[in-house]
Amino acid sequence: MNITAGQLLSQIQNPADLKKLSKEQLHQVCEELRQYIIDVVSVHGGHFAASLGVVELTVALHYVFNTPYDQLVWDVGHQAYGHKILTGRREVFPTNRKYKGISGFPKRDESEYDTFGVGHSSTSISAALGMAMASHYKGEFDRQHIAVIGDGAMTAGMAFEALNHAGVANANVLIILNDNCMSIDPNVGALKEYLTDITTSPTYNKLRDDVWNLLGKLPVGKNFTRDMASKLEASLKGVVSKSSNLFESFGMRYFGPIDGHNITKLTDTLQDLKDIPGPKLLHIVTTKGKGYALAEKDQTTWHAPGLFDKITGEIFKKVPERPQPPKYQDVFGHTIIELAEKNDKILGITPAMPSGSSLKFMMEKMPERAFDVGICEQHAVTLSAGMATQGMRVFCNIYSSFFQRAFDQAVHDVCIQKLPVIFCLDRAGLVGEDGPTHHGVYDIAYMRGIPNVIISAPMNEEELRNLMYSAQLPDNNMPYVIRYPRGQGVMPEWRTPFKAIKPGTGRKLRDGKDIAILTLGHPGNFATEAIRELLADGLQPAHYDMRFVKPLDEAMLHEVFTNYDKVITIEDGTITGGFGSAILEFMARHQYKAELRMLGVPDKIIEHGKPEELFRECGYDAAGIARTVREMMKNKITVTA
Amino acid sequence: MNITAGQLLSQIQNPADLKKLSKEQLHQVCEELRQYIIDVVSVHGGHFAASLGVVELTVALHYVFNTPYDQLVWDVGHQAYGHKILTGRREVFPTNRKYKGISGFPKRDESEYDTFGVGHSSTSISAALGMAMASHYKGEFDRQHIAVIGDGAMTAGMAFEALNHAGVANANVLIILNDNCMSIDPNVGALKEYLTDITTSPTYNKLRDDVWNLLGKLPVGKNFTRDMASKLEASLKGVVSKSSNLFESFGMRYFGPIDGHNITKLTDTLQDLKDIPGPKLLHIVTTKGKGYALAEKDQTTWHAPGLFDKITGEIFKKVPERPQPPKYQDVFGHTIIELAEKNDKILGITPAMPSGSSLKFMMEKMPERAFDVGICEQHAVTLSAGMATQGMRVFCNIYSSFFQRAFDQAVHDVCIQKLPVIFCLDRAGLVGEDGPTHHGVYDIAYMRGIPNVIISAPMNEEELRNLMYSAQLPDNNMPYVIRYPRGQGVMPEWRTPFKAIKPGTGRKLRDGKDIAILTLGHPGNFATEAIRELLADGLQPAHYDMRFVKPLDEAMLHEVFTNYDKVITIEDGTITGGFGSAILEFMARHQYKAELRMLGVPDKIIEHGKPEELFRECGYDAAGIARTVREMMKNKITVTA
Repeated sequence: MNITAGQLLSQIQNPADLKKLSKEQLHQVCEELRQYIIDVVSVHGGHFAASLGVVELTVALHYVFNTPYDQLVWDVGHQAYGHKILTGRREVFPTNRKYKGISGFPKRDESEYDTFGVGHSSTSISAALGMAMASHYKGEFDRQHIAVIGDGAMTAGMAFEALNHAGVANANVLIILNDNCMSIDPNVGALKEYLTDITTSPTYNKLRDDVWNLLGKLPVGKNFTRDMASKLEASLKGVVSKSSNLFESFGMRYFGPIDGHNITKLTDTLQDLKDIPGPKLLHIVTTKGKGYALAEKDQTTWHAPGLFDKITGEIFKKVPERPQPPKYQDVFGHTIIELAEKNDKILGITPAMPSGSSLKFMMEKMPERAFDVGICEQHAVTLSAGMATQGMRVFCNIYSSFFQRAFDQAVHDVCIQKLPVIFCLDRAGLVGEDGPTHHGVYDIAYMRGIPNVIISAPMNEEELRNLMYSAQLPDNNMPYVIRYPRGQGVMPEWRTPFKAIKPGTGRKLRDGKDIAILTLGHPGNFATEAIRELLADGLQPAHYDMRFVKPLDEAMLHEVFTNYDKVITIEDGTITGGFGSAILEFMARHQYKAELRMLGVPDKIIEHGKPEELFRECGYDAAGIARTVREMMKNKITVTA
Repeated sequence: MNITAGQLLSQIQNPADLKKLSKEQLHQVCEELRQYIIDVVSVHGGHFAASLGVVELTVALHYVFNTPYDQLVWDVGHQAYGHKILTGRREVFPTNRKYKGISGFPKRDESEYDTFGVGHSSTSISAALGMAMASHYKGEFDRQHIAVIGDGAMTAGMAFEALNHAGVANANVLIILNDNCMSIDPNVGALKEYLTDITTSPTYNKLRDDVWNLLGKLPVGKNFTRDMASKLEASLKGVVSKSSNLFESFGMRYFGPIDGHNITKLTDTLQDLKDIPGPKLLHIVTTKGKGYALAEKDQTTWHAPGLFDKITGEIFKKVPERPQPPKYQDVFGHTIIELAEKNDKILGITPAMPSGSSLKFMMEKMPERAFDVGICEQHAVTLSAGMATQGMRVFCNIYSSFFQRAFDQAVHDVCIQKLPVIFCLDRAGLVGEDGPTHHGVYDIAYMRGIPNVIISAPMNEEELRNLMYSAQLPDNNMPYVIRYPRGQGVMPEWRTPFKAIKPGTGRKLRDGKDIAILTLGHPGNFATEAIRELLADGLQPAHYDMRFVKPLDEAMLHEVFTNYDKVITIEDGTITGGFGSAILEFMARHQYKAELRMLGVPDKIIEHGKPEELFRECGYDAAGIARTVREMMKNKITVTA
């Protein structure tokens, strides 16, 4: 289907074209931009509500500022579709998030307008400040550096670290706080309440002005002496001058709140701010999903709804022909409740992913035992550690790539202290369309070197349930990582009874001849598929689901290396330092000399695409595994023939 | 030397004994505690000024609260000596920071009063909140949970993440903000200025009260109508009710600031706060080094002065018999200036370690090009990335173990974008007396799996200089890690001319027979020493200083594995996933079958002690290396004999 942009939008190749329009035409541009996003996303998929919420802001920024000379950093980047469309990528926009297409996030390689690659939250102020300090050092004092950050992203610590620095740095930074009360799920925490407070009292700044005006008119009489008047004035001055808001406390000049959907007000305000040097913050209030009624009403569903009928708002779900396996996240979400019903020590923590992790089920059912703590992985982990000191069994659910942000806390507060926190790392492995920033491919490598931790990966739903069950048993006194992928498992009938799994024990799935395949986690299923094909060719690979990368099942490995001189390891993580590397270390310790090939993610950045496309690219899909077995067995086959 | 505690202190084995004393006696306890710390630290070493600054707070907390039932978390822990002395560890206190002695930080294994192990900054609020939420869940509503955190630690993001949560959590958390304007170096940033501001205006709360009082007395006349009066009152109410301070913005009840050296005021205030449920913050103002005049005057020097004459204040420095090699940190500190003088694109960043990293030399000489950004490793890294987008060559100097806290930023903002930030990781390897939280032993393992990064380690001062020189050359377009240890190098004459080093090239230090030793970084010197000894025994190990763990010098490795069938790798980092593991991966790729032994830090927590003691324990000191060579060569020797 050919999607055409509106009359004005279709003439805009880049911001220079936008600047040619009159202010009055901007309304229409906004309307057309919003419509184009709806048209394309409904058919091609992607993030939706966030970009709708900043249509006016996007147009105003590129209209007022001299991008890319003035530098614009979009925090997270879910909201940057309008920005992409206005900066030379309107025509390729339908390739958004597709294999070899444009990225769903701003990306430096893609455009000079994408000044900083994003994906994880709360980096924008630091990045913009770095640019601003560099400009200042180079004497480019006319240059502005703009960070657009949501109120959700503002809860992550690094945003405050940057504020603390920006407030005293001599640099042109404009922070635009896009306040819509949402992350993917509704925003939480004290800051959110504070913002609501200052937003619903928009007269606050006016009040301050009033006080100053009225002070000049204070009368003095016998009941109210000159002395009392001057005392009142002094007190008031003290209070008013110190009654800074939160951002002023950090040394920022604060402006707003203003309506982020009023394009005229926005362009006027930005025009004023453009000429103000130094650090400043503009607070705008927007509605996520603005202009698409259903999205405004249910912002979490419409964060990234998949394909939909833009007229009726019907979200297309494939109707499966037979019962489908559940998503791993739902297995987690339901299983933690089952376990918590029997073990009153269990608590659940998610940093801002109640829907994505499916912890929301427990939050609904046991609100006193499951908590969304906002975008703050660091805090989430150390909070869990604190709870663990009190005998709680905390399931702390974090996406693998976001867990990187809590690495120090995992090392310093959990593993060094050997506190039995259970880390459920969702979205481990190649995640697909979200691309490099979200691929959870480093966790095995970065956690494996840390002492005092069990690291496991289930091959299917039943295994996930049993690992969760085992991790919370009283006899486990260790930090326990369970990593599992985005998307579906393989077992339509997944509610199996719990069985304890001893840490460091694998499963032999089949015996074989000459060659053994050792898998970790879900890709074990790719190996099963490959083996089916190889058996037809007369090859007989053994298959071991190792389940744990730490501790290793040493008894099983002795069996493997005693019986097979060709071994393949398969993991959905980086090969460098990963599961295969752990097997090599075992071999070195015991002086085994087998030929070992490691399949997994190679040492390069894997871009976005469908998971299957990426598995194929990396060579650990079923076809890649079968190919590798054949290559390794070539000599043997020739001999047999 | 036998050090005796004062009359009252010597009777205190634990807080129960303290509680038996009258309030009037607490002055004397404080005096004796301060004196005991001075007596012991002057003779046995350790952190000094921080503990002196909280003597009164420590006594007051244990006097007022029911520790350990009420739970006390010391942020960072430098300041917890008084706490240790009052909680059963007075007599072992002279073993502080010594091998097999007590830890310099609170540690759960050591005492039930040490509720949470610390070392890295800014974890205390999260930990205490976790404990508090667990208590709340368990129905222990009478329990208090106290985090003592400095204004320096408050600048790290995770403290704000925790504030944002604490402000809305229904839990008994008391945050004590110990405001002394210092980290190890003076604190920096907007927050510090804000705290100074509210501290130097202690009348602020009183002002608010005054306003309310005077409002009741407003007269009305012809120049000031009833309408104007009510308008003023409404405006004032709006301003005053919203004029929260920073902490109130986060939903905390704020108390203070009060004098943190006034023991009576402290105990009275804590007594009041003890019975207030929910989240609250007490702001106390203290002087780091309080009671020891020299320490009060020069707080950075007296943070951890080493041994000193407590009467004269003379800090003992060993007078070396001959010129000593410099500290690696000083080689960094002086070399960056040399480079920056020639390359105007160079900037320097340190998160709160200007003295420890020796970036202070550049900050003094080129204040517009070198920045202390406060305790905020995350921001420091992404700020550097932002600067790098503008063509700057940023040397971002972070201690290896603190770099863990910026891991996500290193991956997401630097490596994925391939921005040529130069990370100088000081204190890499086993650091000695600071122990497990500070050992920089994981960096190789956690960085090696990330694409787009060069990882190097110099064996000596000249190599450090040349790596720094090479990293900033225009032809390097990659993120570049240079890791080097705490302490001295080996070259008294270290100011050698710069030579470029190509990434992925090692140095062959000597040819050999039968066995090759591959080293990375400073432990290469231990190998040199071991080889000297082995040569005397007729053994001929080859020695290669690999210099880079990523990329590997593949040509050199082919030479090694073609010529030697016994190989030892040596690194001052965890063996699991580290340098040796990289060599194993190379061997697997090329099907080399040599016997490989990996020396380095084993997969367990290494406690504190002198570096030499720890190297010996891990077996990669010279003796350990020689022993390993002899073991591996045993068969060969027998044959030759």
